[in-house]
Amino acid sequence: MSYIVSTVVEELLTVLKEDQVTTNETVRELHAKDESHHKPILPDVVVFPRSTEDVQAIVKLASQHLIPIVPFGAGSSLEGNSIPVHKGISIDFSQMNEILEISPEDLLVKVQPGVTRLQLNKELKKHGLQFTVDPGADASIGGMVATNASGTTAVHYGVMRDQVRDLEVVLADGSVIHTGNLAVKSSSGYHLNGLFVGSEGTLGCFTEITIQVYGIPEFVTAGRAVFETVDAAIDAVTVLRQAGIQIGRVELVDAFSVRQANIYKETNYEEKPTIFLEFHGNQSGMEEDVAYTKEIFEEFGCLSISFETDTASRNKLWEVRHHIAYAYTHGYPGRKMMTTDVCVPISKLAAAIRFARTQIEETGLEGGVIGHVGDGNFHAMVMFDTNSEDEVARATKFNENLVEFALSQGGTCTGEHGVGIGKSKYQQKEHGAALQVMKAIKVTLDPNNIMNPGKIFID
Amino acid sequence: MSYIVSTVVEELLTVLKEDQVTTNETVRELHAKDESHHKPILPDVVVFPRSTEDVQAIVKLASQHLIPIVPFGAGSSLEGNSIPVHKGISIDFSQMNEILEISPEDLLVKVQPGVTRLQLNKELKKHGLQFTVDPGADASIGGMVATNASGTTAVHYGVMRDQVRDLEVVLADGSVIHTGNLAVKSSSGYHLNGLFVGSEGTLGCFTEITIQVYGIPEFVTAGRAVFETVDAAIDAVTVLRQAGIQIGRVELVDAFSVRQANIYKETNYEEKPTIFLEFHGNQSGMEEDVAYTKEIFEEFGCLSISFETDTASRNKLWEVRHHIAYAYTHGYPGRKMMTTDVCVPISKLAAAIRFARTQIEETGLEGGVIGHVGDGNFHAMVMFDTNSEDEVARATKFNENLVEFALSQGGTCTGEHGVGIGKSKYQQKEHGAALQVMKAIKVTLDPNNIMNPGKIFID
Repeated sequence: MSYIVSTVVEELLTVLKEDQVTTNETVRELHAKDESHHKPILPDVVVFPRSTEDVQAIVKLASQHLIPIVPFGAGSSLEGNSIPVHKGISIDFSQMNEILEISPEDLLVKVQPGVTRLQLNKELKKHGLQFTVDPGADASIGGMVATNASGTTAVHYGVMRDQVRDLEVVLADGSVIHTGNLAVKSSSGYHLNGLFVGSEGTLGCFTEITIQVYGIPEFVTAGRAVFETVDAAIDAVTVLRQAGIQIGRVELVDAFSVRQANIYKETNYEEKPTIFLEFHGNQSGMEEDVAYTKEIFEEFGCLSISFETDTASRNKLWEVRHHIAYAYTHGYPGRKMMTTDVCVPISKLAAAIRFARTQIEETGLEGGVIGHVGDGNFHAMVMFDTNSEDEVARATKFNENLVEFALSQGGTCTGEHGVGIGKSKYQQKEHGAALQVMKAIKVTLDPNNIMNPGKIFID
Repeated sequence: MSYIVSTVVEELLTVLKEDQVTTNETVRELHAKDESHHKPILPDVVVFPRSTEDVQAIVKLASQHLIPIVPFGAGSSLEGNSIPVHKGISIDFSQMNEILEISPEDLLVKVQPGVTRLQLNKELKKHGLQFTVDPGADASIGGMVATNASGTTAVHYGVMRDQVRDLEVVLADGSVIHTGNLAVKSSSGYHLNGLFVGSEGTLGCFTEITIQVYGIPEFVTAGRAVFETVDAAIDAVTVLRQAGIQIGRVELVDAFSVRQANIYKETNYEEKPTIFLEFHGNQSGMEEDVAYTKEIFEEFGCLSISFETDTASRNKLWEVRHHIAYAYTHGYPGRKMMTTDVCVPISKLAAAIRFARTQIEETGLEGGVIGHVGDGNFHAMVMFDTNSEDEVARATKFNENLVEFALSQGGTCTGEHGVGIGKSKYQQKEHGAALQVMKAIKVTLDPNNIMNPGKIFID
């Protein structure tokens, strides 16, 4: 351990309890990686704050010794967002996991950053409420704020940024600010909520998060529709969206991905492009939407379509979609998944997915496409061997080609995973001169670049 | 004319055409004020850019001579947002009023900042589309972005910030950036869209604006419900909201305001607290919502409730609400309106409006309350004589008391009008340490403080 690290550890122990600070190899390994393919890097030390004051003390020490700090939530990020590329202190928020306040009348909840999505929803259910952002993984709320996470429900409820009403943030100098208030809307001052959501720990550490929640809808109908081609599926969904139908979720799973799920779950769903969708609302309104959807989908040659209303059948119906990620990882032992995350304007989605399909074939690797087709955000995936330089190169080029295509169509390199390590090399091309504005803000708020350095921006 | 001003005018004439630059007294007077009670201040010169290049040239000159620039849209702001408190150049965007692109498939439209709300909707109607933000006045889109405007439809479609997908902005140094992209969602880099929306011209000038639009709903039902007390009306609406009913608009007009409208329009609507509301969606869904609404409202002692579906009857039904502002100004010739704009958490709304009512009485001035009650944002208004120091003082104190109350309840000093001149004195109290972060961003992007100086921040 270097002199500076041992000094910092010593000083950390003067402000935190002994069981809140560790340099244990195993613990550091757990904080060296996330769920992405990015190379693990060990932090020098891992700390477990239990209060805003703890976080302030940690940040002040780091700032004094110019040691990098990297916030760590559930470790479920997908672009290396929580990997300590310059080592330093990994701040694990798992012990700041209290639900501080639930205000049903205001549809607001205040939580500590370590609270996870499932933990929160379990508690909210008692009040007939739900937290709607669903990235799949049981991510921490802090991590979801950091990456502006979204997922299958964004088409109806919006992304993480749309839910955040206020953040308590510890800045690089150890000071504490609140970025918003409890009102539904405000035109008062600069929109710091929006700036800090998606900042990936590069501007500060979140210590309290107040987010909007929603009543659990009275009626939910889930549907699965099988199409001959991805194009037909996308066109059908686009027309449905333009008709102004309020869709709760709408997901595409391509034929190859259905096959992975069939192998993994020993099911025998038809291995063709499939649209999964969900409607919320009142009963008669939903029935009209379902009838209208069938009509439109059949116009686009839908091969089969079924709807379910009770929870058990709905879960069964969504089975394939829910198991995709596991299906791939279990289907290719020893391989990692290179997953893209571009988002394009809806009008370019069909072409983008066609392009992705040809790119997968060009890699010579196996993979498929799933998409949040209501938002134009999709994930094209290939399974590659991290030990094969050639495969790594092909998978990397594949991701690059998808990003280049998305940017050429007015889209973005990341719809929901964030920039992290993987997308920093595209920031200049995507944002142009605006990247200088982002950097200027970063330098203003974190002059010594100690807040999650090496993320979003290339050092 | 001071030497520096005449120099700037001379140089402006070298980069703009003669008819784009004027020091004409009458024209300067038109750019000295907005629709608020704030004292007019004449700009030194008014310019009419026709392109991004024109704006860049103007900003570069201003930056070189350290002359303030103040963007001017339709002049309909309500907190002196476009008043040139330090004189300088008023940039009138009325000649940058082109609708540049309409993309029905992506539900996007790209406009120049001088395009007005009604101009845009007239054009969109041809495509079956609508721009949803409705602040009442025929504001310019640029001005609506600058103040993060909202209005009666925010409860359903969100505020201006929710609509903005990309902005072309000329910064203080004359450089041009784009703050976003055309995708529905993005986790790429800092959220500059959110930062620039609501920045009131203090960070840059908008030259192109890409916003989300929506299909005109197939069915719309409008309703008017009369209650005995404001409390009963608010409670009824709150329960309706918690039931998860999708409301298109929901507005409160208090008894005194109904009376003003009756006098102005020679109508005889019952002079009691009235809720105006609107539902969008499919027919059967709406019918169920209407039935449910009647049920809930009657539980809260609703005295009468009526619904209309065809456009003519709907407009007639909304008549009272639409004429409030004019009713007051016509009802009190020679007086100005002091209107508050606080927004509080929904759970505090009834108490806040009760407080507002008592505050109006304490002023000894005449006034009433209207509110976007679905958002917790309301306007309490008193009519005062700007020539009476005593009345000005009472009206000002009244506004102050409302703001103090809202802040004590976790609300904000401005829900939709922006900070401008009128709310800058509350920024420290509302934002605390976060105000220093806002100032740091301002200084970073506008080191010489030439962009609409004296707004949001106290110099």
